[in-house]
Amino acid sequence: MDVAGIATPALLVDLDAMEFNLREMADFFAHKPCKLRPHFKNHKVPLLAWKQLRAGATGITCATLREAEILVHHGVENILIANEIAGDSKAQYLAELSRCASVVVAVDNCSSIKDLARAQRNGKSQIAVVVDIDIGLGRCGVRPGEEALQLAKCAAGEGLRVRGLMGYDGHLQVLPASLERDELVRRGSESLVRSAALIQAEGIPVSIVSTGGTGTYAVSGEYAGITDIQAGSYLLMDTLYVERGSCFRRSLTVLATIISMNRDGHAVVDCGVKEISGERGLSAVKNMPDVHLTALHAEHGLLELQGDLKSTLKIGDRIELWVRYSDATVSLHSSMYGVRHGQIETVFQIEH
Amino acid sequence: MDVAGIATPALLVDLDAMEFNLREMADFFAHKPCKLRPHFKNHKVPLLAWKQLRAGATGITCATLREAEILVHHGVENILIANEIAGDSKAQYLAELSRCASVVVAVDNCSSIKDLARAQRNGKSQIAVVVDIDIGLGRCGVRPGEEALQLAKCAAGEGLRVRGLMGYDGHLQVLPASLERDELVRRGSESLVRSAALIQAEGIPVSIVSTGGTGTYAVSGEYAGITDIQAGSYLLMDTLYVERGSCFRRSLTVLATIISMNRDGHAVVDCGVKEISGERGLSAVKNMPDVHLTALHAEHGLLELQGDLKSTLKIGDRIELWVRYSDATVSLHSSMYGVRHGQIETVFQIEH
Repeated sequence: MDVAGIATPALLVDLDAMEFNLREMADFFAHKPCKLRPHFKNHKVPLLAWKQLRAGATGITCATLREAEILVHHGVENILIANEIAGDSKAQYLAELSRCASVVVAVDNCSSIKDLARAQRNGKSQIAVVVDIDIGLGRCGVRPGEEALQLAKCAAGEGLRVRGLMGYDGHLQVLPASLERDELVRRGSESLVRSAALIQAEGIPVSIVSTGGTGTYAVSGEYAGITDIQAGSYLLMDTLYVERGSCFRRSLTVLATIISMNRDGHAVVDCGVKEISGERGLSAVKNMPDVHLTALHAEHGLLELQGDLKSTLKIGDRIELWVRYSDATVSLHSSMYGVRHGQIETVFQIEH
Repeated sequence: MDVAGIATPALLVDLDAMEFNLREMADFFAHKPCKLRPHFKNHKVPLLAWKQLRAGATGITCATLREAEILVHHGVENILIANEIAGDSKAQYLAELSRCASVVVAVDNCSSIKDLARAQRNGKSQIAVVVDIDIGLGRCGVRPGEEALQLAKCAAGEGLRVRGLMGYDGHLQVLPASLERDELVRRGSESLVRSAALIQAEGIPVSIVSTGGTGTYAVSGEYAGITDIQAGSYLLMDTLYVERGSCFRRSLTVLATIISMNRDGHAVVDCGVKEISGERGLSAVKNMPDVHLTALHAEHGLLELQGDLKSTLKIGDRIELWVRYSDATVSLHSSMYGVRHGQIETVFQIEH
């Protein structure tokens, strides 16, 4: 079907660009000891997770227990929940999932470890964890070194299977590439690798040392001792990363229709914050440098038209908005049209 | 079931507050010539639309053809799409819907009118429209007066049923109440009523003159000639409206769990922009003045704890975040738990 045939607003992915990104990242990791463990939170499409696995990924990373559940239901066998979960019910459900697949969850406190240990006993399944280390983001995670070691001991002491550790350098992902940035990335990797050595020295085997993302994989993916990289955005890409000089191509847009043209050279499209996230700024318009998105309301986007466009664009014409924040935009949709050369080749189901 | 039993993050509505808002707004319109035509875009829950109809609403307003479809499927018979639609396919689908219910759509240009007229001929059903007038928002709509009249004539000439007109004063909704603001609201209403008179004088009967919202209903709802008010937010309410002195009560929160506590007196909850909109600023925490949301990531919210809370709050504890932008937040969820005195009394399905 031609793209012209679908109703707007609609989420589109350019298949050529997406496949380029898939190959580019797979090539980077093809002959390295470090592997890619792509993040599911970005696209939430099981079929894309499987494309990533077939391209060489060592497993899939996700952000929530619900995402782990979706992955298990879609046959993914090697899952890292790169995030903490809290409370007995979630721990119990994790124990259930752990009977179906290898699911590893991040921990950063003894209280959750005790919940997981209790669920493990009740569920009669082995729960696996990685110690989450704060390497500068200032969100979750313990300090590297002694604090990480103590938490690993706490988890092992409670009978959980400690698989290693992780630390996410989210604060470095969208910094422009520079020697200073790369040095900060290396320091984060170094503190993870050192903490891993400390934990190993206490007789706890470490097989996972996970970090990195789309902005930093090229540095941390080369660092000796890092076993896998949690990059997610590389596949669909955000404008923000592209502005910082990423080698990946933007593939994600929201297709919108002009529903109103006003006398001052403004147009209105049928796409607002319910269809495209404005949380990281306003989108650019694909292939139309003279059209600027100036505001997003709930269901409307306001466009400023320059030059000849004021007279040539008309009601019913369609534009594509580049997605600045793919994570938050994909979450707003239940499907994503895969487009090649103007034709819809497939429709990806986004799972929630 | 106790609220403690549900998994987080979860969208909650306080039923006492919501029912207060329902009654308060219904009481305002109970003995007025002007009626309430509540906006569905805010809650997207057919059951709540029906509660609003039973409380006296004259029909339901919505923002998209998809919402009109949902309303028709749920038996609502009197629907206003207070927005433009563009293109043949949507016009044709509107013609189909118009065979099942009274659906009125806004128009602000002759091109869309011709699409609608063609669809009307093909669908063998009567399509009804209101002329959309820009009363200052600067989004969709024609100028009041002559331009509105010409468009009404164009629609009538094409054989569409012209029901009247509308104009949304979105730019005035969240201004603090003041005499100046009220005067601007009245001027908007005045230009609608005058345009209606012009159109009537040309022999086109006007039965709908629709405007207003949660911030302005009390002024435009009293203005002679305004037939109905499109308020939506009043039922669930946004923090932003409350800050501006609204009489309605906030009823909507997102329930979240503390999944991590760090050494600096920060806590992390399992709720980010995928669960609560940050597009209009960061939420306050319900009943906890010493806890402040300082950032929203995709799946995480960062809290700053003050005073004793640093030692008393712990992993697994739950907080509720007030919703600042209910439209965009409801859109992120598929269900909303109706809560009274800590118990879940019902679960509302949100339709997308």
